[in-house]
Formats: sequence, structure tokens, C-alpha cells
Amino acid sequence: MTAYDDLQARFHRIGAIDGALSMLGWDEAVMMPDGGSEARAEQVATLRQIQHEMLTAPTVSDLIAAAAGDALDPWQAANRREMRRRWRHATALPADLVGALSRATARCEMVWRTARKEDDFAGFKASFASVLQLSREAMAAKAAAFGIDGYDALLDQYEPGMTADRLDVLFGELAEFLPDLLDRALAVQDERPQPLTPSGQFPIEAQRQLSVRLMQALGFDFNHGRLDVSHHPFTGGIPDDVRLTTRYREDEFAQAMMATLHETGHALYERGLPASWRYQPVGEARGMALHESQSLLVEMQLARGPAFIGFVAPLIREAFGVEGGPFTADNLRHWLTRVSPGLIRVEADEVCYPAHVMLRYRLEQALLSGDLVIDDLPGAWADGMMTLLGVEVPDDRDGCLQDIHWPGGAFGYFPTYTLGAMAAAQLFQAVRDAIPDLDVLIGQGDFGPLFAWLGTHVHAQASFGTTDEILTGATGAPLSADAFRRHLEARYIGD
Amino acid sequence: MTAYDDLQARFHRIGAIDGALSMLGWDEAVMMPDGGSEARAEQVATLRQIQHEMLTAPTVSDLIAAAAGDALDPWQAANRREMRRRWRHATALPADLVGALSRATARCEMVWRTARKEDDFAGFKASFASVLQLSREAMAAKAAAFGIDGYDALLDQYEPGMTADRLDVLFGELAEFLPDLLDRALAVQDERPQPLTPSGQFPIEAQRQLSVRLMQALGFDFNHGRLDVSHHPFTGGIPDDVRLTTRYREDEFAQAMMATLHETGHALYERGLPASWRYQPVGEARGMALHESQSLLVEMQLARGPAFIGFVAPLIREAFGVEGGPFTADNLRHWLTRVSPGLIRVEADEVCYPAHVMLRYRLEQALLSGDLVIDDLPGAWADGMMTLLGVEVPDDRDGCLQDIHWPGGAFGYFPTYTLGAMAAAQLFQAVRDAIPDLDVLIGQGDFGPLFAWLGTHVHAQASFGTTDEILTGATGAPLSADAFRRHLEARYIGD
Repeated sequence: MTAYDDLQARFHRIGAIDGALSMLGWDEAVMMPDGGSEARAEQVATLRQIQHEMLTAPTVSDLIAAAAGDALDPWQAANRREMRRRWRHATALPADLVGALSRATARCEMVWRTARKEDDFAGFKASFASVLQLSREAMAAKAAAFGIDGYDALLDQYEPGMTADRLDVLFGELAEFLPDLLDRALAVQDERPQPLTPSGQFPIEAQRQLSVRLMQALGFDFNHGRLDVSHHPFTGGIPDDVRLTTRYREDEFAQAMMATLHETGHALYERGLPASWRYQPVGEARGMALHESQSLLVEMQLARGPAFIGFVAPLIREAFGVEGGPFTADNLRHWLTRVSPGLIRVEADEVCYPAHVMLRYRLEQALLSGDLVIDDLPGAWADGMMTLLGVEVPDDRDGCLQDIHWPGGAFGYFPTYTLGAMAAAQLFQAVRDAIPDLDVLIGQGDFGPLFAWLGTHVHAQASFGTTDEILTGATGAPLSADAFRRHLEARYIGD
Repeated sequence: MTAYDDLQARFHRIGAIDGALSMLGWDEAVMMPDGGSEARAEQVATLRQIQHEMLTAPTVSDLIAAAAGDALDPWQAANRREMRRRWRHATALPADLVGALSRATARCEMVWRTARKEDDFAGFKASFASVLQLSREAMAAKAAAFGIDGYDALLDQYEPGMTADRLDVLFGELAEFLPDLLDRALAVQDERPQPLTPSGQFPIEAQRQLSVRLMQALGFDFNHGRLDVSHHPFTGGIPDDVRLTTRYREDEFAQAMMATLHETGHALYERGLPASWRYQPVGEARGMALHESQSLLVEMQLARGPAFIGFVAPLIREAFGVEGGPFTADNLRHWLTRVSPGLIRVEADEVCYPAHVMLRYRLEQALLSGDLVIDDLPGAWADGMMTLLGVEVPDDRDGCLQDIHWPGGAFGYFPTYTLGAMAAAQLFQAVRDAIPDLDVLIGQGDFGPLFAWLGTHVHAQASFGTTDEILTGATGAPLSADAFRRHLEARYIGD
């Protein structure tokens, strides 16, 4: 057995435990009664600890070195690279720091739930300070181990190879055109009659059936997955059993429909990962930027575009037995692409969303470096929201306490949302170029060619190349803001 | 750290993995789409293998020996004994036999599903022969390792300490009175007017609400568990998150209700295990006989008795908006205690059930010893059914192909069903003696004192003592057929 073969067998086990952990995570969010949480935490901690021990065993380090001498085909070589990446992140942190961080974030997430509800930033500060301090230590440990800048090491956890320098360039491009584009989009919108709000009662069972119908139309295979309900929509499970969730309100149908479509984009990516590389690091999704590109390609590029709305409008009318003004394709299209600067990131439209991300990007860098102390966070947040979106922040609940990411220690994650939006635009433009009659097909509800193209150019690539290599292969260029700008201009001021 | 402390830490991990496996098993039966089965098998096999390696590590054997010298309190000493039991079963089998058996049973279960449907014993034989042969090898390995008779080693997997000699005595007691009791019960039944069948349409949602209401009445805490639907009702999950299932038919309500009540008996046992001994072997349920005693105590002793039926009859009428003859307490009681010899074990009444078990007990011993060859199984089955119950077996589907146990390699399991029925009767008699107004309380729907008694005398005992020690503590005597006989006589011929 070569060193590489030995590694592959070890990572197969680690990957199978990943799968078990993913199913337990889905169950926790979707099925588990509250009283099960302590035991579930114990199960998860035990499995994670076992994985960590497998990954950091001294033999693994030797095997990774030795496997460099094995004759490897390109996918195997890429697999070894990804094994090394995962191993580096695991070994960079001392075990006691991993434990302390895990306990601190679990505690801070719990404190945050109450603090957010009660708009109690003062009550949140102490436990957040400990998460921040431990995150700094983890950042420093990874920076030392990888020989790179600390924040870049955090970014690498979510978007391999991404750096602050690159983000500054990409976000700089956005900052150049977005403020003006937002003003112009609002002006265009103000000149048009306001779209009618499709109000009414939308029975949850009818919404569920509409969700299922759209998932099936996009190619989701219910023999390899489920649709359920959770507090926050997400995609969990594993490629052969993708579990996605949505949430329903009786008085509004579009939020659930769009959440389902968004998660279906994630789900089809997972499902499209190459079956021959299951359980191996190279067989996993490339990173959060491409993952978010797949959900936003469906939710934003596809589903809020005129061709899709032409397809879905009659299904909506049929699902709820409604008709008339608010439910025409034309009205739905304007209603589903309203631009409206607001406080809440997860409710933001695609023109405003990047501002929410750029604010968090700047602030988390400042928090980690110590340039911003926690006491000054609410003020810095309010200033940023006013500058970027002209929005007044009335309280911390809908200000700096709105997201679970920081309490959970997920520093370096927020940028991937906007990288995903940019990649989605770039990929959708490339699909349009590759399939000239794409809009006709979409209007007919034929999504086969679209997802076949994404399957080949993105899903099946898994982690073989870098994000930029995958994008270059698919679109001819690495990630940039160009296609995103053209998309926003066409949709919001070009009409 | 003492050797015992080290062991306790190791078994804590093993126990946490047990919990994860249990949740994955529940998901597989209740939630998982078919397409997820291969990946799930991989997750489960990986976790089982890791547990097996933990358990059979040479250090564990040394620690178990060394812990005999530690100063242990009685629960710790019992815990060491149970650790040793689990360790002995794990180390008795060579790893390749474990693997071969696991593959053979997985394959045979699959073959069995089709063979049963198509009444195809010939198509079933080859894969069953390989399960049987490997089971014989496992039996021989355990016999050699434990220095006991092979079949006793199999029994010990499900009912620790049980032996064929003891079973022969207990089943001998049953065989003495059951045939005559069955004849007399049928005669009594024939002399009475037939009960009316409560027919109609029973909406599933109403059945579910009735199930939930009864579970809550018995003390099931939905903050620590769930009720769902599966093809075969079962109780899964963990003590802090007990997942039980039932199944509904629109044209009959009693099967689902009784399945729910049966599983609630299992669930309350799990939930009542001592919280301070979670994850440790001594904190687990004692064995399948006591487990089945808890389900049968609820389903048979309690729920088919007149006091409970007096309580539940109005709830049934209310749940389904029905009234009249078939739904009176008196008619329901006769209808729910009909005696009717038939082909299928899982549909058998409590008078006939032991005959189904005794047949399987005799036949599996003969199969394992080689006294019965597989080709002769259908004939031996038909002879046994005629002798024991006077029932003609028309095909193998409803004959020797009806159960999944043998294809799954679960030899030594069937006897525990009837041991459970006997223990249930013995425990219920003891509760009656301890709580003189038990029937009044039951009639009022007050099950607190009943389950408090079971909690103290059975649930909280976990695996501290043997089954006989627990029964002696609770009822004053080890397991016997006396109470079961008196119960059957009183219910079926004493009226």
C-alpha cells in the first residue's frame, strides 16, 4: 500500500464521519426536541474529537510528506493537496484552544439568542469578548503555522486561497459603482408605479407542493433528498441524501418559494459532486463562494429574471387558486426585484446586500486586529449603515446583534456571500453565452441544459481546481465584479 | 487516574457513538429516502468499526483486569461487570468473521424482502445458508471464548445470563397449561355473542392526536422525544430523546393505538434509566426480556384490561366522533381480547403468541446444531404450527419467511418476547399488590403511581442487577410462568 493509499483509506473514514455529523446536524435543526440538545452535543463532540485525533495523528503528517513521492494522477494529486489543507487547519491549533473555542462559541450563541431578543448588547459583551479573544489566538496560531497573514488564514477556512488583499480589490470594484447604481435604481423604481403586493392567505400545504414542483422542475431527485421545515432555511445532509429546508408563512408565499429555490441551488451542487470521489477531500464542494454562487444563481440570476417568472407565475396562480393584477408575471417581476435599503442583511435585495457584507468585513477585521473595541461596535455599525446605505440603526437587535456568525466564531465567512453573488453573475453570463436560447428554455420550464452546463463546469469539478481555476474554465476569466455590475445595471436601471 | 476511571472515559466515548448510531438508525427507518441507503451503510459501518477498535484495543483488556483491584462502589463494580460483558462479546469474534456476517446478513435481509413478497423459499435458501453457516461459526467462537454452550452465548447477547436449560424449564411450564387454556378460552369465547367490530373511517390526524394524548397521559415527555410513522413500529433514539414510531390505517384505529401504547412502554423504560449513568454500560436497559416486559405491561396487562378500556373508550369516541354499540367499553374490551390462532406472530393474541415463539426457539436450535437442514425448514414449520396451534400453513410467505430475525442473524432473540410477556404479568401483579386502588386510578387516567413504581423497581435499576435480581427485588421472586398463567386464566376463562 502506498502512502497515498493509506491516506485515502484514513480520509475515507473521516469523510464517513463527516456524513454522520451532517445528518446529526440536520436532525438537530429539523427534528430534535429541545431536551435532546445536551446528549446531541455530546455525540457531536465525541465524533469531532475522534476525527481530530485521526487527522492529527503523527503518522498522517509522515504520510502526507511521503505521498508527495507517490506516482499520482492529477485528481489524486489534488486530493493530496486538499488532505494537506484540512490537516494543516486541524494541526495548527492546540487541542486545548479548540476545546476552549468550542465551549466559548456554544455559550456565546446561547447568550446571543437572548441578547438579540432583548436588545441587550451589554449582556452580550462579556461572552463575545471571550469568543473574540480566543478567535484572535486561533488566528495567530494559524498565521504562524501557515506563514500567512492571520485574517487570510481565517478566510482560507471558508474560501480556500482567498486573501484580504484580493478582497480589497474585489470589494473596491463594487464600492466604485454600487452607491451610484443604488441611487439610480431607486430613481428608476420611483418613476414606475409601485408593484401590487400579492397579499392573501397561502395555505402551507399548497406552498409545500409548489416548492416540491419547482425543485423537481430544477432536477432535484427526491430519491436522494428531502424538503423539510426549519427556523432558518439551510441545506444539509450529504450528496446522496441532500436535506434542504425552507420555512412558510401563511400570509406570504414568496419568501418560502425563494428560500426553497436558493437552497435547491446549494442542493444541486452537492448532488452533482463526482460520485467517484465521495468521502475524499477533493470530492467536496470547492468553497463557500462557489456554493453561494450556485444558490444565488438560482435565486437571483434565474428565479427573479423575466423568463423564469413567466414560467412560474401560472404555477403560483394555480397553486393558490388566485388571479389578477398582483399575480401577473409583469407585476411579480417588479415585486420580486424591489430595491429597498434596510437594516437586515438576510432580507436585503441584491443591490444592497454587498453593503451589508462590506460593513461586516471591515468591522470584523478591526475587531480582530484590536483597532475596534467591542464597546465601540454599536456606534461603528450605525455609522457604517448610514454611510453605506443611508439607513438609521434604531437598536442593536437589528444592528450588530442580528447575525449568529460572530457569536459562533465564524470570522472570515461574511465575504463569501458577496463573492458568491459575483460568481453567480459571471457563471450565468457564461451559460447565456453557451446556450443562446436559454430564456426560451427557462420560459418553458426546461432547466436541463442549464444544470447540465453547471454540472459539467462547476459541480463535477468539486475541489479539483481552485475557485479561480474553476471560474476560468467555466467563464474564461477569474472572479471579478464585471458580470455582477452588468447584471445589476441591466436589471435595475436598464429596463 | 485509576484503571476504572480510564475505562469509564473510554466507554463514555463508545456510549456517545451508540447514541449517534441510534439516531442514524431512527433516521434510516423514518426519514431517509431510499437513495441514501448506501451512504448510510458506510457511515454506520465506519462508526461500528471505530467502536469495535476502541473496545478490542489490547489496553482495554488490561484495564478491565486492573480495575478489579480498584476500590469500586457497587454501581461501579456492576459497571465494570457490564463493560467486561460487552468487551467479551466484541473480542470473541475475529474481525473478518464480524465483517463477513455483517455483509451476509445485509444481503440476506435484502433477498428476504423479495423472497417473502414472492413466496420464494427456493430463492431465499442460498443466502440464508451463508448467514446460518457464519452464525454457527460465531456461536462456536463465543462458546469457546466464554466456556459455555453455544446457543447460551447467543441468548446472552439479548438476555444476559439466559440459558437454554432455563428456557426449557420456563417454556415447559407454559407448554403444560397453554394448550388446554387455549381450548377453554376459545370455548368461553364461542359461548359469548361475538363482539361488534368498530368499523369506519378513522382519519389519521385524529389517530395521531389520540396517540399523543395517550402518550402524554402515560407520562411521555415530548420535550425528550417524538412520535413518528414507520413501516414497523419501533422505539429508537436515546434516553434523553426517545423516538418512537407507530403506523396508521384509515379503516382501523386499534392497531396504531396499541402499537403506540406498546412502544410507549419501551420509551418510558429508556427515559427512566438513571441520568447519572448515561453513556455507561451499567446505565443501559437490562436486556430484551425486561424491555419487552415494559411494552407488554402497557399494551397487554394495562391497555387491554377493563380499567384502562373504561378510561380510553370515551377518548376513542371523542377522537373519531363516533358512538354506539361497537364503541362501548364492554364491547371494546371483548374485541381487544379476542383469541384466534393464526399464522402470523406479530398479529397473535397473548394466548397464542408463546406458541409462535416456542416454535422458533425449537427450530433455530435445530438449524444451528445441524439437526434440521434448511430444505426441511418449511415442512418442520408447518408441522409445528399444526401441532401447537392447529393452524394449516398455506405458503412460506406466511410461514417460515414471515420474520426478518433469522435473515438478520438474530438467533436467540425470539425467546425474549415470551420472557417479556411472563415478566410483564409478574410485574403487573406486584404493582396491583403494592397499589390496592390501582384500577380506580387507571380508570381515572391517573398513571402516575403505576409508572412511579415501575420507575423505581425497574427503570432506575438499569443494568445494576441481573434480570432475576431486578424481578426478585420488584416482585419477590425470579422469573416464572405463574403470574402469566394466572393472568391468562383470569382474563380469558375466569370471566
